[in-house]
Amino acid sequence: MKTITVALGERAYPIAFCEGLISRAEPAHLEVLLERVGQSVFVVTNSTVAPLFLDGLLSKLSGKKCGYHCLPDGEQFKTLEQVEGIIGQLIEQGFTRDSTMIALGGGVVGDVAGFAAAIFQRGIPIIQIPTTLLSQVDSSVGGKTAVNHPLGKNMLGAFHQPSLVVIDVATLTSLNPREYAAGLAEIVKHAALADSDYFEWLEANIELIIERDLDCLAEMIAKSCQIKAEIVAEDETEQGRRGLLNLGHTFGHAIETLSGYGQVLHGEAVAIGLLMAADYSVRAGYIAQTVKTRLHALLSGFGLPVVAPPSLPVDLFKAAMARDKKATQAGMKLIVLQALGKAEILEDVDPAVLDETLADWLL
Amino acid sequence: MKTITVALGERAYPIAFCEGLISRAEPAHLEVLLERVGQSVFVVTNSTVAPLFLDGLLSKLSGKKCGYHCLPDGEQFKTLEQVEGIIGQLIEQGFTRDSTMIALGGGVVGDVAGFAAAIFQRGIPIIQIPTTLLSQVDSSVGGKTAVNHPLGKNMLGAFHQPSLVVIDVATLTSLNPREYAAGLAEIVKHAALADSDYFEWLEANIELIIERDLDCLAEMIAKSCQIKAEIVAEDETEQGRRGLLNLGHTFGHAIETLSGYGQVLHGEAVAIGLLMAADYSVRAGYIAQTVKTRLHALLSGFGLPVVAPPSLPVDLFKAAMARDKKATQAGMKLIVLQALGKAEILEDVDPAVLDETLADWLL
Repeated sequence: MKTITVALGERAYPIAFCEGLISRAEPAHLEVLLERVGQSVFVVTNSTVAPLFLDGLLSKLSGKKCGYHCLPDGEQFKTLEQVEGIIGQLIEQGFTRDSTMIALGGGVVGDVAGFAAAIFQRGIPIIQIPTTLLSQVDSSVGGKTAVNHPLGKNMLGAFHQPSLVVIDVATLTSLNPREYAAGLAEIVKHAALADSDYFEWLEANIELIIERDLDCLAEMIAKSCQIKAEIVAEDETEQGRRGLLNLGHTFGHAIETLSGYGQVLHGEAVAIGLLMAADYSVRAGYIAQTVKTRLHALLSGFGLPVVAPPSLPVDLFKAAMARDKKATQAGMKLIVLQALGKAEILEDVDPAVLDETLADWLL
Repeated sequence: MKTITVALGERAYPIAFCEGLISRAEPAHLEVLLERVGQSVFVVTNSTVAPLFLDGLLSKLSGKKCGYHCLPDGEQFKTLEQVEGIIGQLIEQGFTRDSTMIALGGGVVGDVAGFAAAIFQRGIPIIQIPTTLLSQVDSSVGGKTAVNHPLGKNMLGAFHQPSLVVIDVATLTSLNPREYAAGLAEIVKHAALADSDYFEWLEANIELIIERDLDCLAEMIAKSCQIKAEIVAEDETEQGRRGLLNLGHTFGHAIETLSGYGQVLHGEAVAIGLLMAADYSVRAGYIAQTVKTRLHALLSGFGLPVVAPPSLPVDLFKAAMARDKKATQAGMKLIVLQALGKAEILEDVDPAVLDETLADWLL
């Protein structure tokens, strides 16, 4: 069994690749999970994932005190209200500060359950079992948890590292194509910001990746987790280098905010945001046009959107970017590409270049 | 200026005794505050405290970007809804992750603002300026923040250490007598669990304490802060010894929960809880009756309630105790006295002794 360690001292934890653990009836790699849950376990999942994998998980936890809570499916339910609901269930069902939570599902489940675990009685352990590509390569690793506020995405949250991440790649065979493609956007981001060889490998393996060849998926997900784990270990609470993982996200979050949560998938917004960030980088003279062209080709090869949704007004878009979590009183920050495989945090965004970029992409 | 340090490594911070800083017009000890707020400051206070001290504080922050939000006064507003409201104001008024929050008020303001600061964009710094006795000696120190859930007190929260605690003892002259007495309950608790000399000092100074002699108050508050700071520094996240500070609280929280939040003040419930814990300790043979008698005399000397509110059913009371945050899957924990000035965490509560105690105190 392949394992990647997120090296965070006393908060270090493994990302364990356990094909079949929840997607198949026979137990596989079960000891990894059992040695990290205590005697009482509460599973948070959603209405789409529950019919697929909840029984597969609960059947392997027999003998423990188990409870679960099923969220409605969708980014629009990433709210404080849902967190309060989970915590109500924990109290009513008699779970306590020595219980363990498991998040079983995609990014929204991981974020909402992770935040609930972070604040229930000031924090209980959480195990992330991501079942979408996006959550396997991105949101389940690194301890960021959050819910949305009506005025901004991920505005309420906490750093709460999981005690274990379990990745069962076979769960991805049931994922709908749009969700699957959305996950590929974060993978392209990892390659673009950290590793040009990985970017070439993705270009060379488009077919196998689209066919969801399990061996190819396992290799790709492990590579992306490795990149993310190294960055997180260097900068857990995003004082510096971890900010690079926001490549494409300042534009992407504005797209999500203005389109209304749930209309554009996060990964889709990131795909467009990556191209907008690349476009800014070309206009500012940091990278050659060819980098942007290759990024465009890879994203569209994966079936991701490469143009912004219609009717996003420039002024509201800029306001949403300025409200982004990365903003400080000194102003907006932007992650730009310096080369394929190399990104940088730009503190002094050039307003003229930004205006040109937005004018070209919006309306 | 007297300062006590809460020794928490990279999260260490001072408790600064700054008489007059917010209660008087002329600036006193202002540098302590100014060197720890950045260029943008957001003050959270409540409708009772704002008319007394908000202008006094804001006038000393001139030249900074300042905003504020006023909560309604009362424990019943210690809710997630109020936290969401604060965060809405932060976003609307353009505060960002490099802003500092100030909690100006009593324990509820400190807990709600502290929790909002803990989760806004995954955490911004907070300065606590407590204006009640209870918050000066207890809730402002130690980084515990929380709000209530309809099913249980302090069920949602975070550990979020302040960057500074400012204590202006002159604010206490305007505190109403009931609130003032409630604060004395936590002070009696500190003495009872940690320091019999301090307990004797309190017995000897009842008159001066009731008269609110400022020098006497300063000495008393510093002593209580010192006891709390030492315990917190040893055990920040309450894995062990910090649990001693819950002396009287398992009984007290049940009283608060069953009376409806806001009916009995927290300190009043703690006073009764201290006596119930002492009663359990006498019945279990840990302490002599005289310890309980002295505790009773001191609490009633301070004008605190020494009998439980009427009509609290034993079964519901036990259920509320079992749901307390200190409970684990193994069952309820209780803090008991081993002597005056010495407490202990009891893992195996004797059900018969507990039943006797409850039978004597309830209905």
